[in-house]
Amino acid sequence: MIVIMRAGATDQQVDAVREHVTRLELGTIINRGVERTVVAVVGATHPDQRDGLLRLDGVLDVVPISRPYKRASREAKHENTVVTVGDVEIGGPEPVVMAGPCVIESEEQLVSTAKAVKEAGAHILRGGAFKPRSSPYSFRGMGEDGLKLLQVASRETGMPIVTEVMGTQDVDLVARYADVLQVGTRNAQNFLLLDEMGKVGKPVLLKRGFAGTYEDWLLAAEYVMAGGNENVILCERGIRTFETYTRNTLDIAAIPVIHNLSHLPVIADPSHGTGRWELVVPMAMAAVVAGADGLMIEVHPDPDKALSDGAQSLTPENFRRLMDGVRAVAATGRMNRNSVARVAPK
Amino acid sequence: MIVIMRAGATDQQVDAVREHVTRLELGTIINRGVERTVVAVVGATHPDQRDGLLRLDGVLDVVPISRPYKRASREAKHENTVVTVGDVEIGGPEPVVMAGPCVIESEEQLVSTAKAVKEAGAHILRGGAFKPRSSPYSFRGMGEDGLKLLQVASRETGMPIVTEVMGTQDVDLVARYADVLQVGTRNAQNFLLLDEMGKVGKPVLLKRGFAGTYEDWLLAAEYVMAGGNENVILCERGIRTFETYTRNTLDIAAIPVIHNLSHLPVIADPSHGTGRWELVVPMAMAAVVAGADGLMIEVHPDPDKALSDGAQSLTPENFRRLMDGVRAVAATGRMNRNSVARVAPK
Amino acid sequence: MIVIMRAGATDQQVDAVREHVTRLELGTIINRGVERTVVAVVGATHPDQRDGLLRLDGVLDVVPISRPYKRASREAKHENTVVTVGDVEIGGPEPVVMAGPCVIESEEQLVSTAKAVKEAGAHILRGGAFKPRSSPYSFRGMGEDGLKLLQVASRETGMPIVTEVMGTQDVDLVARYADVLQVGTRNAQNFLLLDEMGKVGKPVLLKRGFAGTYEDWLLAAEYVMAGGNENVILCERGIRTFETYTRNTLDIAAIPVIHNLSHLPVIADPSHGTGRWELVVPMAMAAVVAGADGLMIEVHPDPDKALSDGAQSLTPENFRRLMDGVRAVAATGRMNRNSVARVAPK
Amino acid sequence: MIVIMRAGATDQQVDAVREHVTRLELGTIINRGVERTVVAVVGATHPDQRDGLLRLDGVLDVVPISRPYKRASREAKHENTVVTVGDVEIGGPEPVVMAGPCVIESEEQLVSTAKAVKEAGAHILRGGAFKPRSSPYSFRGMGEDGLKLLQVASRETGMPIVTEVMGTQDVDLVARYADVLQVGTRNAQNFLLLDEMGKVGKPVLLKRGFAGTYEDWLLAAEYVMAGGNENVILCERGIRTFETYTRNTLDIAAIPVIHNLSHLPVIADPSHGTGRWELVVPMAMAAVVAGADGLMIEVHPDPDKALSDGAQSLTPENFRRLMDGVRAVAATGRMNRNSVARVAPK
Repeated sequence: MIVIMRAGATDQQVDAVREHVTRLELGTIINRGVERTVVAVVGATHPDQRDGLLRLDGVLDVVPISRPYKRASREAKHENTVVTVGDVEIGGPEPVVMAGPCVIESEEQLVSTAKAVKEAGAHILRGGAFKPRSSPYSFRGMGEDGLKLLQVASRETGMPIVTEVMGTQDVDLVARYADVLQVGTRNAQNFLLLDEMGKVGKPVLLKRGFAGTYEDWLLAAEYVMAGGNENVILCERGIRTFETYTRNTLDIAAIPVIHNLSHLPVIADPSHGTGRWELVVPMAMAAVVAGADGLMIEVHPDPDKALSDGAQSLTPENFRRLMDGVRAVAATGRMNRNSVARVAPK
Repeated sequence: MIVIMRAGATDQQVDAVREHVTRLELGTIINRGVERTVVAVVGATHPDQRDGLLRLDGVLDVVPISRPYKRASREAKHENTVVTVGDVEIGGPEPVVMAGPCVIESEEQLVSTAKAVKEAGAHILRGGAFKPRSSPYSFRGMGEDGLKLLQVASRETGMPIVTEVMGTQDVDLVARYADVLQVGTRNAQNFLLLDEMGKVGKPVLLKRGFAGTYEDWLLAAEYVMAGGNENVILCERGIRTFETYTRNTLDIAAIPVIHNLSHLPVIADPSHGTGRWELVVPMAMAAVVAGADGLMIEVHPDPDKALSDGAQSLTPENFRRLMDGVRAVAATGRMNRNSVARVAPK
Repeated sequence: MIVIMRAGATDQQVDAVREHVTRLELGTIINRGVERTVVAVVGATHPDQRDGLLRLDGVLDVVPISRPYKRASREAKHENTVVTVGDVEIGGPEPVVMAGPCVIESEEQLVSTAKAVKEAGAHILRGGAFKPRSSPYSFRGMGEDGLKLLQVASRETGMPIVTEVMGTQDVDLVARYADVLQVGTRNAQNFLLLDEMGKVGKPVLLKRGFAGTYEDWLLAAEYVMAGGNENVILCERGIRTFETYTRNTLDIAAIPVIHNLSHLPVIADPSHGTGRWELVVPMAMAAVVAGADGLMIEVHPDPDKALSDGAQSLTPENFRRLMDGVRAVAATGRMNRNSVARVAPK
Repeated sequence: MIVIMRAGATDQQVDAVREHVTRLELGTIINRGVERTVVAVVGATHPDQRDGLLRLDGVLDVVPISRPYKRASREAKHENTVVTVGDVEIGGPEPVVMAGPCVIESEEQLVSTAKAVKEAGAHILRGGAFKPRSSPYSFRGMGEDGLKLLQVASRETGMPIVTEVMGTQDVDLVARYADVLQVGTRNAQNFLLLDEMGKVGKPVLLKRGFAGTYEDWLLAAEYVMAGGNENVILCERGIRTFETYTRNTLDIAAIPVIHNLSHLPVIADPSHGTGRWELVVPMAMAAVVAGADGLMIEVHPDPDKALSDGAQSLTPENFRRLMDGVRAVAATGRMNRNSVARVAPK
């Protein structure tokens, strides 16, 4: 931590800072500059110590110099983490596509979608059994019946399953059916749920909070990893900005940023990230080119009649076009995590 | 709902919209304008019907015309809701002040703070036993031991208690000790927790999500009310913006806006709303003048040593100054909800 | 500046940083910590030197420790600046109210509004002769004819005039009529116009950019002051956020923040800050209580028929109610700049 | 325009709306629904009429249904606009790359950069002679001397020139040297400058304001086009969000959105859009894949010593790698504007 004194801070004020730091059992190096004095704090500091320093008289600002996440950081582990689900590798050489309906409505709807996306080349089946909805009056999913349908569709297509868990009370239930447990954007800082994800024994897909910084997001991963689960997949799904034409602003730069700051794989969700189906194909391709380790895509056999998020769902036909586009760019121009690392040694 | 067709939409496209609406068992009024055709949908529409319409060929946009919250709306109930906690009325003629430490550290710390804030005029004791923290390595609260200390401090001072519940598994425990249950900003759309708040039988204080719109927030209240609990207090605590000098941007306009859109009481939390103690007094006074039904303020006997949020905590002495300021403006110039209603009949 | 090295940075990388700094004719203090090495740069650094350091191998981040604004900073000048316009003092003991129509439409409209606001207690007449409009097809103001009408209304009421200047080519013209020149939010970083404001010889009112940080805003003031004009009034007018119910989010905290960081006076514009007339009275009172040195308020004799911004204009009757409210809170509870300084010694 | 009445609005209030609309010489269709009455306004409305309606008693909201931009809209012109500069076509089948230093420092620096980027495949030379800088104390460019150096470099390489014009007083001067005039993000709503761009007789490159919506941006284009200049190129350069790790958030979705809403070409600036050189290559490739008609890239022969924006400048070597990547994805997988139009007929 670096303590920046105000211009004109007195010697007594600087001494008080040094004494405060000494009581924390840390050392100081004092640097009297032309404009102001700066006190560097030496030793293993803790973010919680910042507040106390910030209140001392004559202190202008206190700048943390360590990253608060450890296990998730590329400083801690240089090699890429690859998360294995059945015979699918997330973070390996090929982008992994997770596709399916926003919400499970019936066996017919789910199985036909699953077959269509499998045939087009998808690797993992997604589908919502428990759905977070802004309004209490919207359809909130089929619950365990939906999970059972996922199992049916998985058996018929051979694809593993990713599905959302909305709260701690559902973890055991969802974990019985799912191969990957998804934590949604509205639970991105539901710390009790993140604690449970540390113990669940299955890979976890962590969506970025729609107002979460990169640091917030990596700290959420840190919760899961600190609990003992290293199999974390990050998912960029758009942030909330002043622009309202799109549902969110999909932050494609998050992909190379995470590859730079962390060893964890990161995928993109252009369906929620834009909220408009006509933008899903170009944004999916853009994410893959920027190095995304995979995609999560909403597909519905008849989006006009979808019970949720129809506006952003692809038809099976458009999904095939997406897969063609993704394959084309993946073959020729995709940034992989190693090449990003080469471009960006720091 | 209003369906806006693209300029140059064909008659077939307009017909397809009408047929789609008819299948939803709703009526239409078609308005062929100079620039474009507009189709008004007649009947009790549902927000989930928007997506299907939006996908139809030739449709430019679909505009909802009903507010998705019902029970929380001032259109549904004109009279102000007053939430009673012991002999304290939130939403009554006087602003109610909830004060205490961010996190409970010890009996000595809590009881001395409780006595100091009570003496200065606070009405309700706040204190965190379960604390959401961005980092898994930060102090996360004393848990049930903290709740017991709250009870001790409540008995010694006669103040009722407000404290946070972080997840569904803690609801019963926290409800045994607390008079008001607080749902934090990171759980503002934790819908399973909101469902439980509908059944808890005690007043609920709902913080606004730091990226939550007014509509998101009122829909969160709607969850609680739809579950059967009408005793909801809203709390503005700052939103996340591009400005980082303050921890959040406290949106004071939220207070008259909520008084206009809803019959529920609304309070302000300038401690989290600014993250800097020197801004807490002016922002507390500003909130009260704008009509806030109360305040939530962090106070610590020795903020330099606080285990959490020391930078934004007031000393007991500064808290007394805050109470003096609040009393002065409350006596002379505060907008009350009725006067706001008079200024703003719509 | 503080250079933070990556964990595991080599001695050669640290040496390269030291050599780079030496070439800039600055000194270094090297602090080898437990987690990482930190290099403090000693001497009068320049913000432009940060980029070069940031690119060096092994560098994680470079933290500036001086504020880039000098003349506008309270570190440079402790005493409050008071800007005098005729016999009105902006930044003195009383809040100063600037009121009038958004856009000047006719002599009748302007003079009747001027008389009404003067009678209610306004100090300075505002009115737009040159109007920035998002659409090229909107009414853009009467130009010099509007300025002449301002002069007529000023003579009839004795109030000085504040009006907007939209570009360098209009500076001389506007300065012939206006007592205070206003730079609008869309020109908040029009640096050529700011340069001209440094030479204009009249007080300048600088609106905050709707996406401008406090630092951007104080640097805009710095442009004017560096050009030789110390008479700068800052005006908070709302920032753009994800919330769209209000036109902008009025950042009331900006008032005590500016009083803390700078010696310049700061006023608030709740008309543009909310875009809804029913919010103007509570937000005006909140701003004054938080210490605003004044207000800028849109008033129109018949807002339903206004050519611009009718939705946010007050009727003369509502303006009188605003003045009553402002006087009430100013008399009893307003934070003045000195009391803010006392609360916030740092 | 659609006028949405409050639930419970009286017949008198609906009548008053109809009379107000009639006075505007427009017609109404009244739609009495289950929840509320809606009044559709028939005829050629104007955005400025919304405010007056919004103030009427009993009115809840007023929804505009026409887009305020006309000439820039794809509804007005279905065919793609291609802007021709020398023998370069912006908006044609190939992405056009504009590259060069942020700021011109010397003939040696500019010419060597120009040769390097030309050799790597760039089409247009960029370079700043007049630079907007947040601080008045930063280097603000060489002015006309810089323009002359651009001419030298252009002659030596055969590349046309794009450079920024900061204010109306410089338009004639800059237009004598430049082939394309750039309006920067801080001037995105400098309406007097936009007016001049309508008359300048050369193509104009319009950067999006860093807090500008798509509508703001297209209205800026509308200013230029309404002035008589159809040769407008839009440039996405990142928006300001809560995330501060990157300098801005580059909104890649803006590219297909603009292709959908408008016939104008749109390019991307990943240098300013990220502020970090290591992100420039992946974001450039992502933009091209999403359909960008071109790129604007900062290149510096020795970025550590650049006088401006060194942190985001590429070395010539990294620029060659960027061109390789762009060519690879452009050949195989790029969304062109026609294919976007096919995916998105509405």
